Amino acid sequence: MWSDLAAVGRDRSLGGYSRHVFDDADLQLREWFTEQAQRRGLEVETDRNANIWAWWGGPGPGAVVTGSHLDSVPGGGAFDGPLGVVSALLAVDELRVRGVQPSRPIAIVCFAEEEGGRFGLPCLGSRLLTGAADPDVVRRLHDPDGTSVADAARRAGFDPGGLGPDPQRLALIGAFVELHIEQGRLLTAADPTAMVGVGAQIVAHGRWRITVAGEGNHAGTTLPVDRHDPMIPAAAAVLAARRVLSLHSGAVATVGRLRPVPGGTNVIASSVDTWLDVRHGTAADTAAVVDEIVAMVREEAELEGCTVTLHRESLTEQVDFDLALSMQLSELLQVPMVPTGAGHDAGILAGSVPAAMLFVRNPSGVSHAPGEHAETADCEAGVQALADVLATLAA
Amino acid sequence: MWSDLAAVGRDRSLGGYSRHVFDDADLQLREWFTEQAQRRGLEVETDRNANIWAWWGGPGPGAVVTGSHLDSVPGGGAFDGPLGVVSALLAVDELRVRGVQPSRPIAIVCFAEEEGGRFGLPCLGSRLLTGAADPDVVRRLHDPDGTSVADAARRAGFDPGGLGPDPQRLALIGAFVELHIEQGRLLTAADPTAMVGVGAQIVAHGRWRITVAGEGNHAGTTLPVDRHDPMIPAAAAVLAARRVLSLHSGAVATVGRLRPVPGGTNVIASSVDTWLDVRHGTAADTAAVVDEIVAMVREEAELEGCTVTLHRESLTEQVDFDLALSMQLSELLQVPMVPTGAGHDAGILAGSVPAAMLFVRNPSGVSHAPGEHAETADCEAGVQALADVLATLAA
Repeated sequence: MWSDLAAVGRDRSLGGYSRHVFDDADLQLREWFTEQAQRRGLEVETDRNANIWAWWGGPGPGAVVTGSHLDSVPGGGAFDGPLGVVSALLAVDELRVRGVQPSRPIAIVCFAEEEGGRFGLPCLGSRLLTGAADPDVVRRLHDPDGTSVADAARRAGFDPGGLGPDPQRLALIGAFVELHIEQGRLLTAADPTAMVGVGAQIVAHGRWRITVAGEGNHAGTTLPVDRHDPMIPAAAAVLAARRVLSLHSGAVATVGRLRPVPGGTNVIASSVDTWLDVRHGTAADTAAVVDEIVAMVREEAELEGCTVTLHRESLTEQVDFDLALSMQLSELLQVPMVPTGAGHDAGILAGSVPAAMLFVRNPSGVSHAPGEHAETADCEAGVQALADVLATLAA
Repeated sequence: MWSDLAAVGRDRSLGGYSRHVFDDADLQLREWFTEQAQRRGLEVETDRNANIWAWWGGPGPGAVVTGSHLDSVPGGGAFDGPLGVVSALLAVDELRVRGVQPSRPIAIVCFAEEEGGRFGLPCLGSRLLTGAADPDVVRRLHDPDGTSVADAARRAGFDPGGLGPDPQRLALIGAFVELHIEQGRLLTAADPTAMVGVGAQIVAHGRWRITVAGEGNHAGTTLPVDRHDPMIPAAAAVLAARRVLSLHSGAVATVGRLRPVPGGTNVIASSVDTWLDVRHGTAADTAAVVDEIVAMVREEAELEGCTVTLHRESLTEQVDFDLALSMQLSELLQVPMVPTGAGHDAGILAGSVPAAMLFVRNPSGVSHAPGEHAETADCEAGVQALADVLATLAA
């Protein structure tokens, strides 16, 4: 299966993969998943939010659901997302090899646009399903080319009118367990022999767009005193994001995306969009870190004669996975529980249903980059662990 | 004529105009120019470097050449370039109204890609013509979409094999006088009543690409100590460029273009390209300013565990226009001589033929931006001045 996926959505300029909801790679991966599920006799359906479900035993209450997502960040690794989907399919195979006859329905789900790589809002499919995102707002989100979610969905053959909360479907879920490559190195730090771990919590995380507006002008002929260059406060934002980390232990803040407009070499920019990713403790803790960064940017902007606009793209509260379920998995598998700074669909679902996560270790910690890697033996241990979990929960 | 051009190459996302060599807007403008020239009975030809020439009196030695360029920076103004072309056509009309019978040939030239907006190298057409750019290097330059100059030329119906120095053509030029909107406010400072000025010199200017390579990783789960984030030294480059200006009076240094790779919100960039535009005194002065900036970037990069690569895209020596010619024009028109920090095709030609410039005043100083503006009365004064110059030089 891994070799089926290896060629889909390769990004020649960035390296790794760029797979975004409703693009060619995404549609190819959806077809691939549907075929793999049908080959196993699973009943495949796409819900009103473009999430795909494959049922063993048909949809029904008390279902044990696993799965993850197929999309990537721009230039992402091979594992973030697909590992959870591939492992779910292999876990079903393993259960059949073991002769397990589940008494509850089992489902594998592929959530749409978990990374938010195209439309900016992460966990798009799970947020819509649970009502955590407003479908009217979502339909109007645009990708960098100006295509709205509604138009992209329509072109891919999905009805954007159907987007929105789906309480009947949520009510079927008895438990959701997402398997994912670990992002970071906490598992190995907690237990150097553990190939798999159980998620403890997800710290609060959010995304903000800081727009600095100045005055576009000629790079060669504009005197220093006449410059209102928005790149100066934007650069201050990058450095402020780094600086606040020393003030707040455990906080992370990153500017990985920055776009000067118009972006010409011999032109002072007229405005700059800077995206800020911050994660720290609770949502209030996270917002406080952002406030500190933005205060530094505003100070620089005032000196430069620029203005600053702040737009919150998302802010997700700290999530504790279902404690009873997580402890049950940790005991069953005899592996440690570890927190994570990464958002996941399981974190969104945790607000509505008992949810937990399994992490496959990642000793280098590299993720969201072409160098993301998990050893085959560790991935196989992940499949066995997921099979154990499904067998137990669906018994 | 201005209203003919108003609709061509509008940039809806950046504002203003984006007109780049061999794109649709450029080809449309070339057709427009050819038609305007032919309507005036001028003989139109395109040289081996995609520059268009319109001859009054047919090609011949001792020719008096005027003109400018039709391309723009991304999101540029309406005047930078086209004003010199439109004024040249109107100056020919004016000479005919005056009944002038020139004894030397007069030509209007439209140089290709003066701004370097598509392929990074400014004054592409005039550099190739004079031998200041190597055609083998130029053919391999790429635009941001990965299209080479050779491929773009071929698609537009030009033979890239012909690019290169054209000494026979240069030998025909007795004098080149380019009319241009002023970029900056030196003319008004020198004489508040002058609508037109004569160029004195162009300070040295160049473009450098600073590539900072770090390690792509997950924005949420990578501990501060594990980060090798190339955005940190890139931000330092922006601030260093500003800082050095206080050390060197008259120097300008700008970062108007910066591209993190892969550029995802929740991803630590793996590398960042930062473009630096510096102009100061002589080429050696300019290079010294760049060295200072890059030293600061290298210092930050070392702290961050990143590496820095410097690529010089261009460096043009300070240009003094032909002093005798410039003083002749200044006396003829009774207007002051002013220096400029902007590069021009006239500056490239000044190395091979007697060259001079006329500037139409620009009281706001805004250029390379949608707000670039010259008053109609000042533009009309520019046409009259250019007609006076052509009548005198071609007499």
